[in-house]
Amino acid sequence: MSFDRILAQKTALCDTVLDRFLPRPEELSDVDRHASQVVEAMRYSVMAGGKRLRPMILMETCEMYGGRMELAEPFMAALEMIHTYSLVHDDLPAMDNDEYRRGRKTTWCVYGEGMAVLTGDALLNYACETALTAFDDVNDRAESRNVISALQILMRGAGIYGMIGGQCADLEAEKDPGAADADDLLYIHKHKTACMLESAFQIGAVLADAPSEDIELLGKIGENIGIAFQIQDDILDVTGSSEELGKMTGSDEKDNKLTYVSMHGLSKARRDVKRISDEALEQFDHLSERNDFLRALIESLITRTK
Amino acid sequence: MSFDRILAQKTALCDTVLDRFLPRPEELSDVDRHASQVVEAMRYSVMAGGKRLRPMILMETCEMYGGRMELAEPFMAALEMIHTYSLVHDDLPAMDNDEYRRGRKTTWCVYGEGMAVLTGDALLNYACETALTAFDDVNDRAESRNVISALQILMRGAGIYGMIGGQCADLEAEKDPGAADADDLLYIHKHKTACMLESAFQIGAVLADAPSEDIELLGKIGENIGIAFQIQDDILDVTGSSEELGKMTGSDEKDNKLTYVSMHGLSKARRDVKRISDEALEQFDHLSERNDFLRALIESLITRTK
Repeated sequence: MSFDRILAQKTALCDTVLDRFLPRPEELSDVDRHASQVVEAMRYSVMAGGKRLRPMILMETCEMYGGRMELAEPFMAALEMIHTYSLVHDDLPAMDNDEYRRGRKTTWCVYGEGMAVLTGDALLNYACETALTAFDDVNDRAESRNVISALQILMRGAGIYGMIGGQCADLEAEKDPGAADADDLLYIHKHKTACMLESAFQIGAVLADAPSEDIELLGKIGENIGIAFQIQDDILDVTGSSEELGKMTGSDEKDNKLTYVSMHGLSKARRDVKRISDEALEQFDHLSERNDFLRALIESLITRTK
Repeated sequence: MSFDRILAQKTALCDTVLDRFLPRPEELSDVDRHASQVVEAMRYSVMAGGKRLRPMILMETCEMYGGRMELAEPFMAALEMIHTYSLVHDDLPAMDNDEYRRGRKTTWCVYGEGMAVLTGDALLNYACETALTAFDDVNDRAESRNVISALQILMRGAGIYGMIGGQCADLEAEKDPGAADADDLLYIHKHKTACMLESAFQIGAVLADAPSEDIELLGKIGENIGIAFQIQDDILDVTGSSEELGKMTGSDEKDNKLTYVSMHGLSKARRDVKRISDEALEQFDHLSERNDFLRALIESLITRTK
């Protein structure tokens, strides 16, 4: 089977897992029906399509080390809920003020600003509730310890020492893009994007009780891929077509946003994506186990056009 | 010692615990300094004074059943961080649009709207990180199980089946206050306020391995106190002085907000606070252990003027 067909199957599998863990407005009790608007907005936000890269990586690293899917699935859903909440809040008028994402109206455009703030909060909170359900499937003390570690990695990668830290620096840099230097930009890319990919690579392995050297190496792989992924995003904003990306291209430039391309130029950006991705692949080949699909997935991220 | 002096001491103790768990901008590593703005805003938001009712109740129920403070403290901090994040997001222009709280400028007024969204997110995320540190102090499997239960109660009470559900219904009711009935208002008061107080009463007891009948009863006590507390808030908005409350009185009326007083009138509201609080005290006296300070604290909530 071709890589593209396997990828499509695995994306569909991630969608199924997400669909199963997300609450449904029509299944709420009579009392909880008062909250149906936020539950509907959570579904609208998460089930908007997307590459499902983070849950897929988590699933693949867990499988790579022979881990149990019952433990991985709540974390797959939690990771994507956290990723989605960050997009919902990012799109708000008070942040990036985006009206479209993946060719659809953003959450605040459909449900209003106040409800969009609440929807993001609900997704972050529900992500924790969902990840905690992994304890229900734990068989022994070792698995319980692994779930605790996975929870710690998940929340740290999403917080002030991870993704939120990156968003804070990004917001600060936007006030005065001229003042930001290459270090600031690297911090933003690493924290805003790479930290959650690091979490994806590590959580699957931790749940599968992988050797600690591998978990450390997977963190570095995730970091490199995250940075390369974000630089590629900046490149595509300049060179891609709106149709492929599902959003206006050149929108970063329009907003006077600090990007890798505006700082280093297009050709250095392209060289760096290649160099950093190659490093990630080399690190990947040093792991004690192999997963050909995951390797191909990493390679595909370099050459993607959307 | 008078109740007021003990209360002041215990409030100061809660402040110390909070201060210890909250990160400090000046102690961030060189890399993490990029996130110092959000860390500063987290501190500004949490260390704004306040009754510290939720962490105090948690501490007292834990002590009541002879539990260990090492396990309770991370949850005390987490609960107050979650309470604070909900206030930071509630005050946003897209929600209640409040410029003052407890006599100080609200977070969005000081740090801007985008940073206030991020600060709320950071507090919710850091609350989870903080609560998870309780696992570091666990001595045996029973304690580990209790920490897992406490985490589940914490996150459920804060989420769509708890506080966020209440906020969703509140936001919906504001669009059309005439359409909301007494049931809707009770749902809002119960979920927006009472669920987190239920969590406070139950988590302390769960961490102290209290009998399950007591934990159930503590949930009902928390629910009753939360509803009475919220009705009292509505009463004070009409009758209190701005000076005592640290915010404009009559602000709910001005905003055409649905309140217990506007729906049922002042005298029924007063009678109901008394009736529901008395029920809570009676339930409290049925617990297998006693805590005279906590009982006095519950009584004081009925007669409070701020």
